[in-house]
Amino acid sequence: MKVLGIVVEYNPFHNGHLFHLQKAKELIRPDYTIAVMSGNFCQRGEPAIIDKFSRAEIALKMGVDVVFELPTVYAIQDAGGFARGAIGVLDGTGVVTDIVFGSESNDIEFLKKIAEILHEQPDLYNQFLHEELKKGYSFPNARKYALMRYVEELKIMDPEKVKLIERSNDILGLEYVRAILDLGSNITPHTIKRMGADYKEEEFKGRLSSATSIRKLIREGKMDLVRESVPEESFEVICRELEEGRGPVFLEDMEKLLLGIMRLKDRDDFSKLYGFSEGLDERFHRFSRVSSNIEEFMEKVKSKRFTFTRIRRLMLYVLFEMRKDFVERSNEKGPQYLRILGFTESGRKLLSKMKKVSKLPIVSTVSLYRKVLEKALKDEERNMYVDPELFEEQLLLDIKATNVHSLFFKSDSERKGERDFRIQPIFLSLDT
Amino acid sequence: MKVLGIVVEYNPFHNGHLFHLQKAKELIRPDYTIAVMSGNFCQRGEPAIIDKFSRAEIALKMGVDVVFELPTVYAIQDAGGFARGAIGVLDGTGVVTDIVFGSESNDIEFLKKIAEILHEQPDLYNQFLHEELKKGYSFPNARKYALMRYVEELKIMDPEKVKLIERSNDILGLEYVRAILDLGSNITPHTIKRMGADYKEEEFKGRLSSATSIRKLIREGKMDLVRESVPEESFEVICRELEEGRGPVFLEDMEKLLLGIMRLKDRDDFSKLYGFSEGLDERFHRFSRVSSNIEEFMEKVKSKRFTFTRIRRLMLYVLFEMRKDFVERSNEKGPQYLRILGFTESGRKLLSKMKKVSKLPIVSTVSLYRKVLEKALKDEERNMYVDPELFEEQLLLDIKATNVHSLFFKSDSERKGERDFRIQPIFLSLDT
Repeated sequence: MKVLGIVVEYNPFHNGHLFHLQKAKELIRPDYTIAVMSGNFCQRGEPAIIDKFSRAEIALKMGVDVVFELPTVYAIQDAGGFARGAIGVLDGTGVVTDIVFGSESNDIEFLKKIAEILHEQPDLYNQFLHEELKKGYSFPNARKYALMRYVEELKIMDPEKVKLIERSNDILGLEYVRAILDLGSNITPHTIKRMGADYKEEEFKGRLSSATSIRKLIREGKMDLVRESVPEESFEVICRELEEGRGPVFLEDMEKLLLGIMRLKDRDDFSKLYGFSEGLDERFHRFSRVSSNIEEFMEKVKSKRFTFTRIRRLMLYVLFEMRKDFVERSNEKGPQYLRILGFTESGRKLLSKMKKVSKLPIVSTVSLYRKVLEKALKDEERNMYVDPELFEEQLLLDIKATNVHSLFFKSDSERKGERDFRIQPIFLSLDT
Repeated sequence: MKVLGIVVEYNPFHNGHLFHLQKAKELIRPDYTIAVMSGNFCQRGEPAIIDKFSRAEIALKMGVDVVFELPTVYAIQDAGGFARGAIGVLDGTGVVTDIVFGSESNDIEFLKKIAEILHEQPDLYNQFLHEELKKGYSFPNARKYALMRYVEELKIMDPEKVKLIERSNDILGLEYVRAILDLGSNITPHTIKRMGADYKEEEFKGRLSSATSIRKLIREGKMDLVRESVPEESFEVICRELEEGRGPVFLEDMEKLLLGIMRLKDRDDFSKLYGFSEGLDERFHRFSRVSSNIEEFMEKVKSKRFTFTRIRRLMLYVLFEMRKDFVERSNEKGPQYLRILGFTESGRKLLSKMKKVSKLPIVSTVSLYRKVLEKALKDEERNMYVDPELFEEQLLLDIKATNVHSLFFKSDSERKGERDFRIQPIFLSLDT
C-alpha cells in the first residue's frame, strides 16, 4: 500500500496547489493521500483567511483523502519547527510511505546530503558553526557558511551548491528530510520542481497566482480575479464562507488585540516566551508602546536580522503566550495527536486501518479528547509514548487559536466560539 | 489653612459636578481645593470617555487647584477599595483638612456611627456578620443585616435606618469615613445633599444630566444636548479632544481585546486574579468562549449576585492581569505616590508647601519616577513608609492603562502610546 503524505496550508487552495497535488500523485501513484494542514494560523505568522474546516473541505474535494491539523505550536514556527511537527504527524499515522514537496532545486540527493550533516552533527561541522556564529552571523547564515566549509573540507560537494538552501521551499524541504532522519522514519522523501512563473501557460489551465496575492484580491473584493486563480471547488467554498460571514480574517483585523496585549506586557513577560532572543524582548516591549498600529510596529522592530515573517510569528507567540519550555518540549517530543479535520469515503477506510497502526492517538471528536488520551496511555501494545500534559497543552492551544480566529469573523453570530467542539470533522461522501 | 479634598471621576465634567464643587466650597470656604480623580479607567469598569489630562484640565478651569490621579488599582475597585485609594491620596498630601462628598442621606453623623462599627469590628458585629454570611447572603447584604442586628442590640439607632446605606453615594461615603478612621486621619468629612431630579430648576442653570447619559449623547453625536448639560469650559475641551481624535473611548471599542484576552485564558488564569471568587472564574472562562460579543458575555455572566458593574470591573482585572496579592497589598498599604495630573497658579503654591509635609512622594514627571522613589526612601525625617515594589507596580499599571486607553483613540497618530511620558502635568496659569 502506498500512501502519499503532503504538507500544506491551502490559504486558500489555488491552481498551483492543484498542480502540485496532481504531480505528486503522478509521481507516487498512491492508494491514499494524506495532508497535514495548518489550522487557523499559518507559518507566515498570519491568521488563515478562512477557517480550517472549510480549507480541509476544499482539500478533500480536490483529491486528498484525509486532512490532519498541524498543531498550532508547529504551524507558526520557522522551517525547523514547522517540519518537525508536519513530519511528526505524517510519520505518526503509521501508514504514510512517501512524502512529496515542492523544491526550487528539485534535487533530493543534494537535500539528503545536507540533511544528513544536520542530523549527524559531526564535530567538525559543529566547530565551524560555532566559529561562524562567533563572527556575528545570524543563525541561518552561520549555518550556511559552516556547511559550505564542511562540504569543502570533506569534498562532499561544491560548496557553492550549499547556497541553494537559501530559497524558501528548499529550506523547508531540507528540514523535512532532516526530520525524517531525526525520527528514524521509513518515509521516502521526493521533490517536484516548484512551479513558478517559468511554467508554460499551456501546461496549466487558469492563472497562477500565489496565495499571498489571492488573499490580497479577496481583501480588495476582486472576486473575479480570485475565480481565475483557484479551482472552481475552492472558489465555491471560499464564496460560501465569505457570504456566511466566516472571514476573510486578516492580521490587520487583530491589530488592537495584538498591540493591546503587547502594551500590557512587561519586558520580562516577553523574555519568558519562545523566540525572544537577540534583544527582541526589548524591541517588542519598547516599540509596541510607541507605535500607532501594527504596520508601524513591524517597521520599527524590523532590521536586517529580523524579517517581517519572524516578527509576525513572534507577535503570535505573544498572543498565545507560547512559553519557551512548551515549544522546546513540543520540538523535542513532537506532535502528541492526530487531529482529523476531514476525510472522504476512501479516507474513512484508511483511518480504520490507521486505528491499528498509528503511533499517535487519533482525535476526531474534540470533546472526547480525554478518553482518547486515557486509551492511548493504556495501550501497552502500541507503546505510543504520549506525554499527557503536552498532549493537552498542544490541543488546548489549537482550541484557543480557533476561538481567537473566529472572533474576527464578519458575522456577529459566527463569532460565537468553541468551533472545535461544535464542528465535526468534514466528511465528504461519494454522493456529494 | 483650610484645604478641601474631593473625590471625582469627571467622566465628563457636567453641570451637576459644578454644582457640587460650588456647594462644597461654600461649605468649607477653603484656601485651596484638591481633587483626586480616576485616570483613564473608571469605577463603573469602563474606559474614561476622554483622557485623564483633558479631564484634569477641565477640573482646573472649573476651580480645582491641584488634580492627582487615583491609581488605577483603586479607581476600578468597588466602593471599599476605591475609597481606600482616594482617602489615601488625600490624606497623603498632608494638607487636606476637609473632604466633602455627595450623599443621599446627607447625614454625616449616621455615616460616622456605621463607619465606626466597620472600623472597630467589635466581636458581636463580627459574629452577626459571620451568621448572615452563613445564611448565604452576598457580602453587602450580610453586612447590612449584621449592622441592623448590631445597632438594635446596642440601641445605637433604629435598625431600619441602616438601610440608607443601600444607595450608591452613601455606600461610597460610608467607605470614605471608614477609610479616614482606618488611617487615623485628621481629615474632617462632610456631606452635601446629592443633587437629583428634586432640585429646583431655578437653583441651577442648564440641564442636569448624569455622566452616563452625557456619554450616551456623545456616542450618538448629539453635541447640542451635551452643550446644555455641561459647563462651557468642559464643552470646549470635550470638543477639542474629539476633533483631534482623542476619543471618545467606549468599552465596546475594546470588545475584541477583552474577549480575545479572555478566550486565551485558562480557568486557572482567572482564579489567580483579584475578585474571581464565587465561581466567577468558571463563568468567565466558559462564557467568554461561547459569546459573540461583550454584551452577550455580560448577559450570560450576570446573575442576581453579579451586577453588570462588577462584571465590567472584573473584565478590567483580566485585561490588566490584576493579581490578588497586588490588589490586597495595595488595599493594605494604600497608594504609594501622589501623581500630579494638573495644577493652577494657586495650586503651584500648595504643591510647594506639600513638598515639605506630604506623606507620599510626589510624581510630576513620570520618566523621573525612580529618582522620586529613591529620594523618598532616603528621606528619614519624613518617614514615608513607601514600598518600592508596590510603588512601581501601581505606577506601571497607570502607564499601561493609558497605553491601552489611547489605542482606542479615533486618530491613528494619537494612538501612539506612552502619553504618560510625553504629556507633562497640565499647568493652568492665570493668563489662560
